[in-house]
Amino acid sequence: MPGERPLLGIGAPLPGASEPTERADAARNRQLLLDAAQQLVREQGVDGLTMDALAKRAGVGKGTVFRRFGSRSGLLMALLDHSERKSQESFMFGPPPLGPGAPPVERLVAFGRARLLDIDVEGELYRAAEIGEAGDRYSGAPYILLKTHVSMLLRQAGVSGEIPLLADSLLATLSAALIMHQMHAQGFSRDQIGDNWEAFVRHVVSR
Amino acid sequence: MPGERPLLGIGAPLPGASEPTERADAARNRQLLLDAAQQLVREQGVDGLTMDALAKRAGVGKGTVFRRFGSRSGLLMALLDHSERKSQESFMFGPPPLGPGAPPVERLVAFGRARLLDIDVEGELYRAAEIGEAGDRYSGAPYILLKTHVSMLLRQAGVSGEIPLLADSLLATLSAALIMHQMHAQGFSRDQIGDNWEAFVRHVVSR
Repeated sequence: MPGERPLLGIGAPLPGASEPTERADAARNRQLLLDAAQQLVREQGVDGLTMDALAKRAGVGKGTVFRRFGSRSGLLMALLDHSERKSQESFMFGPPPLGPGAPPVERLVAFGRARLLDIDVEGELYRAAEIGEAGDRYSGAPYILLKTHVSMLLRQAGVSGEIPLLADSLLATLSAALIMHQMHAQGFSRDQIGDNWEAFVRHVVSR
Repeated sequence: MPGERPLLGIGAPLPGASEPTERADAARNRQLLLDAAQQLVREQGVDGLTMDALAKRAGVGKGTVFRRFGSRSGLLMALLDHSERKSQESFMFGPPPLGPGAPPVERLVAFGRARLLDIDVEGELYRAAEIGEAGDRYSGAPYILLKTHVSMLLRQAGVSGEIPLLADSLLATLSAALIMHQMHAQGFSRDQIGDNWEAFVRHVVSR
């Protein structure tokens, strides 16, 4: 009878079920390593993130770190992906006003302010990625996801004109390299930059 | 008597005056070489600009080209400077609406459209410079000059808020890498991008 068959992945282990469990372990370990790496970057900047320092911080052997990420640049890529995913989750599925449930303009305002906070914390990582991506930045998955989100909110807000161009213009204002220059070279606070973003958004949306 | 003394640089040549003449010659030759280099980039892209190709195009020996610019990257820097200077002259001293004499908002609109034309023609050069400047782009003289100009027009237009942040946001929209992506990867025309710029400017100024 069908009822007697265990459902896939639920209940008693199936033959060969140790494999998924191993994978889940691997994913959890990877997550722990990335959290430790993120802590290191926040404390000491991107330069402080070495394979050695990460192994020490996470209490694992250096070989484990190399096995997971291949190289330091593999680790940086994984870390950026980790950070972008967290931020994507917040604006796609998190609580309002960043996530669904708030009016589109308020979501746009919250999106910019959240991005500024990310850049304040992970700026070196984001900027390193912008430079690495060079001319291809605008064709990469992280940028396209941000642009899709901003475009959706602009459409929901009833903005007219070429939405993709407008989304590019808004996102250009939030480039990590620019924001870091404004914060560290020009001495503007995150609030001042956030207020500029908000005024910008409200004016663009009011057209 | 004081009246009998020739004024510096005016009238009969002073002792050693052959030097300035030589320098004027050098400046004219440099200008001719840069014009030829600009032609080459317009026809064949940045990759087509080699020391050899420039010597052939300008009808001079390769040694002359090396003597003037040192290296290919020296040539690229000189060419960028040449192009930026031409554009600076137009918006600082040229005829309205780009130059003085038109209302500030019209000058801002014209500034963006002129920049788009420059990027359309010299985009590869501008983008190469943005990548080369990396994080330091916003501290470099060319960027600071553009920002000073845009800030001045925003002030003249009576815009409130943090003018330097606003100028950054407007200029971010005109990044060569972004514009080239919009033109070549996304297929937007220069007019469409110019219209987006104009709408952007008019909304920012209306606040």
